[in-house]
Amino acid sequence: MKIRSVLSAAVLAVATTVSATQALAQERFTLRLAETWGPNFPIFGDTTKRFAENVEKMSDGRLRIRIDSANKHKAPLGVFDMVKAGQYDMGHSASYYWKGKVPETLFFTSMPFGMIATEQYAWFYHGGGMELMQEVYEPHNMLSFPGGNTGVQMGGWFRKEINSLEDLQGLKMRIPGFAGEVFAEVGVNPTNIAPGELYTALERNTIDAVEWVGPALDLRLGFQQIADYYYTGWHEPATELQFLINKDSWEELPADLQEIMRVAMRASAYDMLIQSQHANAEAWASIKEEYPNVQIKQFPDDVFDAMYAANKKLLDEAAAESDMAAKIIKSQEEYKEKSRAYTDISERAYLNTMAEVE
Amino acid sequence: MKIRSVLSAAVLAVATTVSATQALAQERFTLRLAETWGPNFPIFGDTTKRFAENVEKMSDGRLRIRIDSANKHKAPLGVFDMVKAGQYDMGHSASYYWKGKVPETLFFTSMPFGMIATEQYAWFYHGGGMELMQEVYEPHNMLSFPGGNTGVQMGGWFRKEINSLEDLQGLKMRIPGFAGEVFAEVGVNPTNIAPGELYTALERNTIDAVEWVGPALDLRLGFQQIADYYYTGWHEPATELQFLINKDSWEELPADLQEIMRVAMRASAYDMLIQSQHANAEAWASIKEEYPNVQIKQFPDDVFDAMYAANKKLLDEAAAESDMAAKIIKSQEEYKEKSRAYTDISERAYLNTMAEVE
Repeated sequence: MKIRSVLSAAVLAVATTVSATQALAQERFTLRLAETWGPNFPIFGDTTKRFAENVEKMSDGRLRIRIDSANKHKAPLGVFDMVKAGQYDMGHSASYYWKGKVPETLFFTSMPFGMIATEQYAWFYHGGGMELMQEVYEPHNMLSFPGGNTGVQMGGWFRKEINSLEDLQGLKMRIPGFAGEVFAEVGVNPTNIAPGELYTALERNTIDAVEWVGPALDLRLGFQQIADYYYTGWHEPATELQFLINKDSWEELPADLQEIMRVAMRASAYDMLIQSQHANAEAWASIKEEYPNVQIKQFPDDVFDAMYAANKKLLDEAAAESDMAAKIIKSQEEYKEKSRAYTDISERAYLNTMAEVE
Repeated sequence: MKIRSVLSAAVLAVATTVSATQALAQERFTLRLAETWGPNFPIFGDTTKRFAENVEKMSDGRLRIRIDSANKHKAPLGVFDMVKAGQYDMGHSASYYWKGKVPETLFFTSMPFGMIATEQYAWFYHGGGMELMQEVYEPHNMLSFPGGNTGVQMGGWFRKEINSLEDLQGLKMRIPGFAGEVFAEVGVNPTNIAPGELYTALERNTIDAVEWVGPALDLRLGFQQIADYYYTGWHEPATELQFLINKDSWEELPADLQEIMRVAMRASAYDMLIQSQHANAEAWASIKEEYPNVQIKQFPDDVFDAMYAANKKLLDEAAAESDMAAKIIKSQEEYKEKSRAYTDISERAYLNTMAEVE
């Protein structure tokens, strides 16, 4: 290893410049981050902690991230507004929560029947996704970056088996957002209920089914104790969280700290996908062992076909209402088609071969 | 954003300490990296360039990576020895290349019928894989980190269709390493041929089949012009490259630059998986459009069964020869089983549903 001193005689001669550079290099920054999650929320909260730790170590303490969980700022779904207004420098949340304010934010988390995580990251970084996301957030004086992926979310816990589209009619299910709208189109009665009340609601038949995340987070809420049917996913195949940054806060940072932020956010996001894989595998092994009542089910074909058609109808409506939405939907659909053709001959073919051979 | 000056009066008072700290902070380092690949090798070479760029920007130029490609150092498969001896501070290569020197290095790239990329990263970072890898490299005074993943590699290009195990008998195929040994067990005659001669060898029937990487890298070598059958993968479901670091070089770096290296390597490795997904999807779309002769094939069941049994036999032999190999194989097998059970109900189920519904 070659070690050279930067402070050569020539550089030292330009004393003023050196002082200015050193002063900037010595400036310390603290970014206040509001996360949508409660304190010590598993996986999601680990992601912000890991990000903050990486940033602090890489910058040798010059840049610190102070994380406020929802119990502190009391506004889990106020993150967009707080970061926009500069009350917080950063947020950790999910883009689709802001659909009510800015309809086009919907598309940067995960779409029903959409891309899986590797495909979606490839779309963000190589297929124009990042540019489209910035175009949507720019008018709100914010930057948005991928903030961690859950992998394929499960289709939810059902107390009765779904054998046909008929069984969904009038079914009361906790499933929020766009996926809830798709379900509504095919006859489900979607509701949103606070997480703390979900178990009791399912137990008392206030609801018939509940969608949450996947084994690792679902296990903690205990649904496996009162519902036998665990359905495979279709509605959020690659839920990507989000780092939101106030643009003024971003621009105050020197270039090296911006780069530290950029790489740390990128690594933390990928890391969450890997942690999710691990935690879900562990949790699924526990459920299988301790709750033999739980059966994995796929929705029957008529249900998938109806949901696929409903999803397409809703996307067509969104595209008709907004040119920007139309542009994003087109970009995602085209990218997914090309990317999936390859996934089908690589990962899908391999996993199917393995399922037969083992 | 709160900005505080670190140079408070109190700190300035301890003038000696400050000077020492500043001197260290101003020290500049250059790490010389030898990569196994030729100059401007796509995807693999992009990974080292991206890593070097991230490190340089994050450290504000305090840490530079000088990359020497194989045309410069002339020893593509000498990277292990050169880094061990300190001729280079770092290498970018693949762990399984060192199997002849240290048998246990085999297990840190990808194994036939093994884990896919997300599963294998989860094993590295949450399942004890990193610790096992360091245990193998420690006696050679080196650290090893994941260095970028190709995703599932394709099973190779064949000029004749393989309809049964019989068709493999005496077949001459370019397939190196452990996968070649597995193929040899089932009757194939595996050979290794320099990349520049592969096309001609296949065209002139010196070999009957060739395994390379996947659509993006295969397309450049032109196999699609002379072979109609492109087989799906089984032998390297998640080929992970490797950053090798000489331990003395590593220990000379201050803690913040070590952390910058760690996070940059981690992000670059993940980034390569995503770039591979993108580039393979693009290349596969081109092949489909321009070479309608190319057909995707899966090996028949009897071939898979025989290869699976041969793989197991070779692993049992490796385990019998080395306690360390036995420990790694057990760790990987157990982790794969648990992780795959979840992949099967999440990503595999989703991709299969989508293949039916679209």
